[in-house]
Amino acid sequence: MNPMLSAVERARLTVVLVGARNPQNIGAAARAMQDFGFSDLRVVNEFGAPFEAAQLDDNTPKSAVGAAGVMQAARRFDSLAEAIADCTLLAGTTAIGGREMQRQILPLQQVSPTIVDALRNDGSEQTTPPRVALLFGSEKTGLTNEQLSHCSVLTTIPMFAPLLPTGEPARHLSMNLGQSVAVCLYELVREGFEGSREIPVLHQAVATAEDRERLTRMLIETMEGTGYARRFPANAREHVVRQLAQSLGSTRDEASTWMGFFRQILRRES
Amino acid sequence: MNPMLSAVERARLTVVLVGARNPQNIGAAARAMQDFGFSDLRVVNEFGAPFEAAQLDDNTPKSAVGAAGVMQAARRFDSLAEAIADCTLLAGTTAIGGREMQRQILPLQQVSPTIVDALRNDGSEQTTPPRVALLFGSEKTGLTNEQLSHCSVLTTIPMFAPLLPTGEPARHLSMNLGQSVAVCLYELVREGFEGSREIPVLHQAVATAEDRERLTRMLIETMEGTGYARRFPANAREHVVRQLAQSLGSTRDEASTWMGFFRQILRRES
Repeated sequence: MNPMLSAVERARLTVVLVGARNPQNIGAAARAMQDFGFSDLRVVNEFGAPFEAAQLDDNTPKSAVGAAGVMQAARRFDSLAEAIADCTLLAGTTAIGGREMQRQILPLQQVSPTIVDALRNDGSEQTTPPRVALLFGSEKTGLTNEQLSHCSVLTTIPMFAPLLPTGEPARHLSMNLGQSVAVCLYELVREGFEGSREIPVLHQAVATAEDRERLTRMLIETMEGTGYARRFPANAREHVVRQLAQSLGSTRDEASTWMGFFRQILRRES
Repeated sequence: MNPMLSAVERARLTVVLVGARNPQNIGAAARAMQDFGFSDLRVVNEFGAPFEAAQLDDNTPKSAVGAAGVMQAARRFDSLAEAIADCTLLAGTTAIGGREMQRQILPLQQVSPTIVDALRNDGSEQTTPPRVALLFGSEKTGLTNEQLSHCSVLTTIPMFAPLLPTGEPARHLSMNLGQSVAVCLYELVREGFEGSREIPVLHQAVATAEDRERLTRMLIETMEGTGYARRFPANAREHVVRQLAQSLGSTRDEASTWMGFFRQILRRES
C-alpha cells in the first residue's frame, strides 16, 4: 500500500485550463483542486476577461467558494507553449468524439499510475524538477488537435453513451469542466489510498515541454531546409510535426542529440 | 476482472438529492448521471421551486446540458422516507466536518464494491428487486444526522485539508454538489471500465520491430551521410542510435514519415 500523495508531491501537479470561457467554470476547477489538495492553476486565454472575472477579490465566483487561495495564485498565459514550458509530463484530457483518433487514448484509471509515478519522483538525480501538467480544453470544443499535439499522453474519463442502431454514440460525450477536473484529481489521490505499485526511478534529466518545442521548431526548419516540406506538405504541418517530435527526446540527453543532428543537416543545406 | 456495469444494473441506482436549493446544482447532478449512464434522479424538497426551476422545459439549466432526459424523468418528494421507500441499500455521502461522528464512515473507494455488488444482484432469489440509493445533502449543510440515520452505510470522498497547529482541519471540507455526484458515479463505473474495450484505440497499424530496425539503419546512414557521425562518433554508435530510434514511429504511419524524411536528406547528400 502506497502512502497518499504528500503535499510536496501534490505541489508538482499543474492544472492547465486551455481557453476556458466561463469564470464560474474556472472557479469550479479551483475548488476541485483545493478539495483534493492541489494548488498550481494556469489558465491559457488570449483574452484576460474570463480569468480576471474569476480572480477578482470582490467577485470570486460562488463556484470557487473555499478556494480563494488557489484562485488568487492562479496565472494566466497567452499561449499554451508558455503555460507548459517547465512541465516534464503533459497529459491531455479529451472526450472521444466523432473525429478520428490517430493516437492512443487511455482511460483515466490507466493513465493515473503514470502521473502519480511522475509526481512521486523526487528528482534528486535530475537537473529538471518534475512537473506534470494536466490539460483541459474549453467548454465548447475541448482540446483541439493542435493543443493535443503538445501532450505526451492522452486520457479520457470513461463515460456511457446510449448507442444508436448504427453502433455510433447517440450524442457527443462531454463532461462539465469542473466535474472533469474533480474526477481526474480524485483518481490521482485515490491511488494513494489503496493499491501498491513499484515506482521506477528516472536517472536521467527529463526533457521539458520547452525542450520539445525547440525540437519541433528545428524539425520543421529541417523539413523546410531539405525540401521535404515541399514534397510532403501534409506531413510538414505544424501540429503533425509536433506530434512526430513528441516521441523524440524523452530525456534531455536524447533531445540534445536530436538537436545536434538537425543542426548538422541544416549546416549542410546552408 | 469484473465486466462493467450493464444498463440493467445501472438502472438500479437512484441518486437522491436531499434539500438541494440551487436548480443549477440539480441540473449538474443530472448531467453527471447522464455522463456515467445512470438515470433515476429523485429530489427531496418540501418546496417545489428549485426542482421545478431545474425541470422546466424552457428553462433547463445550462448545467444540465445534454441531460434533459434524466432531468425530465426526475421526481420530487416531500420527504426523504417517501423518496427512498423502495430502496434496498442506502448509502449516505458526508463530508467529515466538525461534528462528532458516532458511526463508521468509509472512504468512497471502500464502499464502492458494496454498492456495485448490490447493483449486480439480479434479485432472482429475492422478493424485493434491488435498488441502491445514493444520498447527497444540501449544498449548505450536507446530510443532517437525522437524514444520515436512514442510511445503512456512510461514505465520504477523500479530501485534503490544510491542518491547523491543533491538528484540526483549517476549514470545513465540502465539495460542490455536482462534482460530488460526478466523483461518486465515476467511482462506481471505473472498476468495470478497466478491462473493457469500450475505448477505441489506435486506428493505425503499429510499427513492428522490423520497421524500427529499418528506421535505425536509415538513421545511421543519414548520420554518416551528413557528416554527423564523424563529428559525434559516440552518438552514432549502433546501439546508441537504435536506442534513439526506439522512440521513432510508434505507428507504422509515423515510421514511414521518418523514413521519407531521412530519404530526402540522403538524396540531397548524393
